[in-house]
Amino acid sequence: MTIPLAIGIDLGGTNLKIAVVDREGRILAKEVAALTTGTGPEAVVANATAMVDRLLVAASAERSEIVGVGLGTPGPLNLAEGRVVKAVNLPGWQNVPIRDRFAEALELPVALDNDGNAAAYGEYWVGAGCGAGDLVMLTLGSGVGCGVIIGGKVLHGHFDNAAELGHMIVVPDGLPCRCGQRGCLEQYASAGGVARRTRAAVQGGESSTLAGATGQMERIDAARVVAAAQTGDSLAARIWDEACYYLAIACVNIQHAYNPERIVLGGGMSQAGSFLLKPVQAHLAQQQWSLCDDVPAVTLATLGFDAGVIGAAGLVWQLHNRAN
Amino acid sequence: MTIPLAIGIDLGGTNLKIAVVDREGRILAKEVAALTTGTGPEAVVANATAMVDRLLVAASAERSEIVGVGLGTPGPLNLAEGRVVKAVNLPGWQNVPIRDRFAEALELPVALDNDGNAAAYGEYWVGAGCGAGDLVMLTLGSGVGCGVIIGGKVLHGHFDNAAELGHMIVVPDGLPCRCGQRGCLEQYASAGGVARRTRAAVQGGESSTLAGATGQMERIDAARVVAAAQTGDSLAARIWDEACYYLAIACVNIQHAYNPERIVLGGGMSQAGSFLLKPVQAHLAQQQWSLCDDVPAVTLATLGFDAGVIGAAGLVWQLHNRAN
Repeated sequence: MTIPLAIGIDLGGTNLKIAVVDREGRILAKEVAALTTGTGPEAVVANATAMVDRLLVAASAERSEIVGVGLGTPGPLNLAEGRVVKAVNLPGWQNVPIRDRFAEALELPVALDNDGNAAAYGEYWVGAGCGAGDLVMLTLGSGVGCGVIIGGKVLHGHFDNAAELGHMIVVPDGLPCRCGQRGCLEQYASAGGVARRTRAAVQGGESSTLAGATGQMERIDAARVVAAAQTGDSLAARIWDEACYYLAIACVNIQHAYNPERIVLGGGMSQAGSFLLKPVQAHLAQQQWSLCDDVPAVTLATLGFDAGVIGAAGLVWQLHNRAN
Repeated sequence: MTIPLAIGIDLGGTNLKIAVVDREGRILAKEVAALTTGTGPEAVVANATAMVDRLLVAASAERSEIVGVGLGTPGPLNLAEGRVVKAVNLPGWQNVPIRDRFAEALELPVALDNDGNAAAYGEYWVGAGCGAGDLVMLTLGSGVGCGVIIGGKVLHGHFDNAAELGHMIVVPDGLPCRCGQRGCLEQYASAGGVARRTRAAVQGGESSTLAGATGQMERIDAARVVAAAQTGDSLAARIWDEACYYLAIACVNIQHAYNPERIVLGGGMSQAGSFLLKPVQAHLAQQQWSLCDDVPAVTLATLGFDAGVIGAAGLVWQLHNRAN
């Protein structure tokens, strides 16, 4: 008797991650590839095909045992047509029928969803949202990804692009965003935004232990900002605290929008653990309304960088369970 | 053969409105009462009971023909217990089991929901949302009410208080709100907020045709601000434009939160018609992201001040249709 398995694919701006995942959300085999041979659709599909072949061997699985492939990609998407409308982090990705390209190359049925939705579903299924009925997840990486699970299902909205809260405007007329808006959450509260704001402040002459020789600027990333803030660098501490402040405002707005049971913070920035969670909760306690006590719990994600692949595979299982 | 009917009740801070509504959303009889005998739960229930008796006569209907009563009240609510947790506009309303009080007094089954949800359901059912799959409605009155309809159903959230977007923070560290937060949408984009901000500016010495003799300050309401703005008063024009600007930001955030087919603007402020809609749409065109063309249509409500009673009755019909 064969044991059915699913494949989860998480496509980011720089990495392609693929895993073989069982019905309980356990990873049997996993591979991460830097998109060194190019980030165009052809290169990515070719990369993924070779990775899946290797992963089936690593997991001692036959292709016939795979019930389907879940694919999480940056949005916006057109789900009915399985298309990426435009991915700002992936040059050349405009109106790409990525679901069918993957399905043909892998010879398997493919379910497409937004990468933020896939990660949220992963945490809902076997991570920080386990046991919750509703969940909103913010993935704090190069941008801010987001997914909303209501009644066990991903919220897609009429145009397929619900839960894009990285582009919630939190600062009217604030910093410009690649999306065309100003003041988006991800300009302040993503790892990328924290790094950019710190670099800009250092370049503007603000005093910081992070100010190094010219040309070192690119080395300032969110992890270094956290480390500097923890050792008392006042510029780093201020920018980190502002990120936490805007995340608290986002949590207030999420509370009033969806009123979920839990709000989960994941992605690279969440590696800071309580150094992220505590100030967010403290700002939230100061911001939050006083009309009722029942408010969402804000917690850290538990699946780390695997939320995307696990969740993508989980979406396959959700479809499979419904059909069988 | 009797024709089944429903009763819709819309309880606001100053008015109680009740209507007898048929299955197609038509009002057969309607009464509006100022809550002059008091706004406490007992007075409101007594008032409503007498109004329903009169309305049954006016609609030539028997109590046995009424399939149920829909009751829209300010929140936050506890739906399972049929309780108003706290209504800031209704002194003395704290943990009031209002559903059962109405059911006992009227001797009819009562469905309780938030007033913003009821109005949104009304517009979805037979108003500006007719034919749409998803809809978000903002009711711009003394505060900003809100309701979200997804797949034909009201979004309630885990704690029953989803869609409270009047308390979406649009200005970090902005004007204080009665809810305990700062910078809530309703401080800038409600009729009440527009009036308060104009009065404050006039009292602060800003030049305006609205500046009258001392003691006339209370006469400045949103309708007068609109009239002054339309005749070239620069203070009134600025405050009205700012209200429209923050509504556009709210629309951007609603787009990214729910991605609905339509966003409907209703309530007292929407009586300004295109003088509200056009600047909101103009600001929106400036704010909105450029990643995809499929965005919600922003429109005016069509049911006027009847959206609440029609929608409350509609929620009864929704339950009734599901059961029969």
